[in-house]
Amino acid sequence: MAGGLFGRLVAAAGATWPAYTRHEFVRRLATGDLPQAAFRHYLIQDYLFLLHFARAWGLAIYKSDTLAEMRRAQALVAATLDVEIGLHVDYCRSWGIDVAAMAAAPEALETVAYTRFVLDRGLAGDRLDLEVTLAPCIVGYAEIAAERMADPATRLDGGNPYKSWLDMYAGAEYQALAAEAKAALDEQFARRGGEGRFPALAASFAAATRLEAAFWQMGLDAVF
Amino acid sequence: MAGGLFGRLVAAAGATWPAYTRHEFVRRLATGDLPQAAFRHYLIQDYLFLLHFARAWGLAIYKSDTLAEMRRAQALVAATLDVEIGLHVDYCRSWGIDVAAMAAAPEALETVAYTRFVLDRGLAGDRLDLEVTLAPCIVGYAEIAAERMADPATRLDGGNPYKSWLDMYAGAEYQALAAEAKAALDEQFARRGGEGRFPALAASFAAATRLEAAFWQMGLDAVF
Amino acid sequence: MAGGLFGRLVAAAGATWPAYTRHEFVRRLATGDLPQAAFRHYLIQDYLFLLHFARAWGLAIYKSDTLAEMRRAQALVAATLDVEIGLHVDYCRSWGIDVAAMAAAPEALETVAYTRFVLDRGLAGDRLDLEVTLAPCIVGYAEIAAERMADPATRLDGGNPYKSWLDMYAGAEYQALAAEAKAALDEQFARRGGEGRFPALAASFAAATRLEAAFWQMGLDAVF
Amino acid sequence: MAGGLFGRLVAAAGATWPAYTRHEFVRRLATGDLPQAAFRHYLIQDYLFLLHFARAWGLAIYKSDTLAEMRRAQALVAATLDVEIGLHVDYCRSWGIDVAAMAAAPEALETVAYTRFVLDRGLAGDRLDLEVTLAPCIVGYAEIAAERMADPATRLDGGNPYKSWLDMYAGAEYQALAAEAKAALDEQFARRGGEGRFPALAASFAAATRLEAAFWQMGLDAVF
Repeated sequence: MAGGLFGRLVAAAGATWPAYTRHEFVRRLATGDLPQAAFRHYLIQDYLFLLHFARAWGLAIYKSDTLAEMRRAQALVAATLDVEIGLHVDYCRSWGIDVAAMAAAPEALETVAYTRFVLDRGLAGDRLDLEVTLAPCIVGYAEIAAERMADPATRLDGGNPYKSWLDMYAGAEYQALAAEAKAALDEQFARRGGEGRFPALAASFAAATRLEAAFWQMGLDAVF
Repeated sequence: MAGGLFGRLVAAAGATWPAYTRHEFVRRLATGDLPQAAFRHYLIQDYLFLLHFARAWGLAIYKSDTLAEMRRAQALVAATLDVEIGLHVDYCRSWGIDVAAMAAAPEALETVAYTRFVLDRGLAGDRLDLEVTLAPCIVGYAEIAAERMADPATRLDGGNPYKSWLDMYAGAEYQALAAEAKAALDEQFARRGGEGRFPALAASFAAATRLEAAFWQMGLDAVF
Repeated sequence: MAGGLFGRLVAAAGATWPAYTRHEFVRRLATGDLPQAAFRHYLIQDYLFLLHFARAWGLAIYKSDTLAEMRRAQALVAATLDVEIGLHVDYCRSWGIDVAAMAAAPEALETVAYTRFVLDRGLAGDRLDLEVTLAPCIVGYAEIAAERMADPATRLDGGNPYKSWLDMYAGAEYQALAAEAKAALDEQFARRGGEGRFPALAASFAAATRLEAAFWQMGLDAVF
Repeated sequence: MAGGLFGRLVAAAGATWPAYTRHEFVRRLATGDLPQAAFRHYLIQDYLFLLHFARAWGLAIYKSDTLAEMRRAQALVAATLDVEIGLHVDYCRSWGIDVAAMAAAPEALETVAYTRFVLDRGLAGDRLDLEVTLAPCIVGYAEIAAERMADPATRLDGGNPYKSWLDMYAGAEYQALAAEAKAALDEQFARRGGEGRFPALAASFAAATRLEAAFWQMGLDAVF
């Protein structure tokens, strides 16, 4: 079907999905209207998030049945540890955030909740359970950026300090990574799934999506 | 030293410990002054918490090195599934909370954060890591109830609807269970620990304590 | 279909299944013809096996999605730690095997291979993966004993020192436990499975069955 | 102390250690006297071993507390998946072994036993437990090759078909990798260990060493 497993999970999540993908945080980020303190708080927590994201893909290597599965998980560990964390550190520096301060910052409740929820689903369940809870992040960010880019209210001129964030996630490279993650869900659902699993997967996906929305809200709450 | 490992972990946690054990939620519970809606919200989330608490002790069975270790973990699974959950369901019914509604309630962010943090520490680390993150709950509740009982501000007459909660955790049976949990920490620290581990254990304990304080706060926030 | 998931897994295993269930070890046990040294070696390793069997059901508690799932796993932990290990110790004593000696015996390669294979499948996969690898043991022993009982070559008079072993596994209580394990496979395959999973589950089941056959062979090899 | 944790583990293993490092398989490999069928069987099982070795280091990423720990585990995943497996496939081809046949070969009991023992220790314990069970492999191979190279009985002329195997593990690159693995044990023992842990670590190390010796024996048994 159109959209595959991911599309069905989004449909099953109902209003929970747009409450995350069209959260006030990202809408104001797109218009350039987001308080910079909110973005800074988000950046710091996102750094701490990335460490657990790399752990989740390390876990996926362990949970692989084939060499091909191992290699895909390995590529995502490498993308996180070799590329993303470095870019993130550089980007944060441009926002005046020091890497040592960032690494020493206490994890927010929202960061703990989403990352450990993912890891627990991944260990209690199988690799499909793990990837389903990661999808709101990986695929969601691609959808969020693409949707904002298509919104006339979005400002991409010099006046929007968040332009490079949108550019990165709307860019071809990240969109391709998200497309691969969607394809992997379909492949695993065919090989490890079946209709009987759908309700439990949909419940995990919705719970993860709520936790991702809470992550945006955490950014906003840092200021108000 | 006096207090053993638990005492040292509390000392290392500094102000984080009393911010949990003397949280406004428990002080108002002791004076009978806590809004009942706050307590009801807490009870519902505590039910969801207990399910993951049982999972944590199931995990401890898996992580055991000896029959004796397995049996202690098994006793805690049984205490949770055979006794506590039943008592909790009865108690909640007396507060007008239906078990089916409770089981269907969405997990609060705070519930997800603490329970999954514990499970992740338990899987990433060893059984000592697991028990250290459970200690703020198991041993903390005993300390909280005992301290409130010793406080002249506490009201134990018919006017305090939370009296039975205090009675249960201050009672000899629960206090003995907490004392065993403390002794188990010492035994494991001797067999699996060493001074080199203390800083990391203290960091886990403090993080878990903060998440427990957030759990009380969640109760209060349900009303205000 | 008749036999449900278990029947399909047995059919897919082909000759691997009877190579385990009709292994020379059990045929000679049934005729009373098995060297006692072979049986003693088996008993000692089976004790070590039971410790990891209890760990596997502890893991299943952790991997449960519902209270009912937790309770079934808890019942199997209890059956193992509270009943089976005790019976086993008593039984071994009647064979002149001391519990301390047994606990101190080195694990045979075959014991390590089967028990850790189960635990790894259980952690890398989900609870269905775990139970599928345990089924050759739980359900297999029931089938083995029932089949031997129905075989005219089997001797159940005083001359067969292994009679009580056959009686236990052919008895109503154990047969009921095996029937429940089969039903649980069906229930989980409906809720977590789907045809796409069958080939991987069948491969795990066949691998576990080969490891169980090796466990019988280990008994025989102790003597020859 | 000289030798650090690794040296102490070897000393505690007593005769178990040389029974592995000076096993008939490696002594005959060094003299060129090993039946080629034995070596071929070993090569095939070693390929299957490497897949689980990569999983073990993926698990170590998950079990990391710091970025530095993650990166070391990631480097070992990469060394395995990007380099070793490729070299192994090429090398096997030169011995007339096809990669598809190798991937489809059933795992020997000895391969299952060692790999799953490692993964179970890694999941039941912490990262130090995991690395201690991997040390007989990583560090042991370096010691085996170096010791054979220093033995006058070893033949390194064209008449020894196993020369390139010895060259690889005795080479500077592999010896450096083994030295790093020893240093990591010391670092982790300081940070996560303590004398109290030593007996349990020594028992794991000795068990893993016995399983590695069984792996050599499996090669020999393929022929005789």
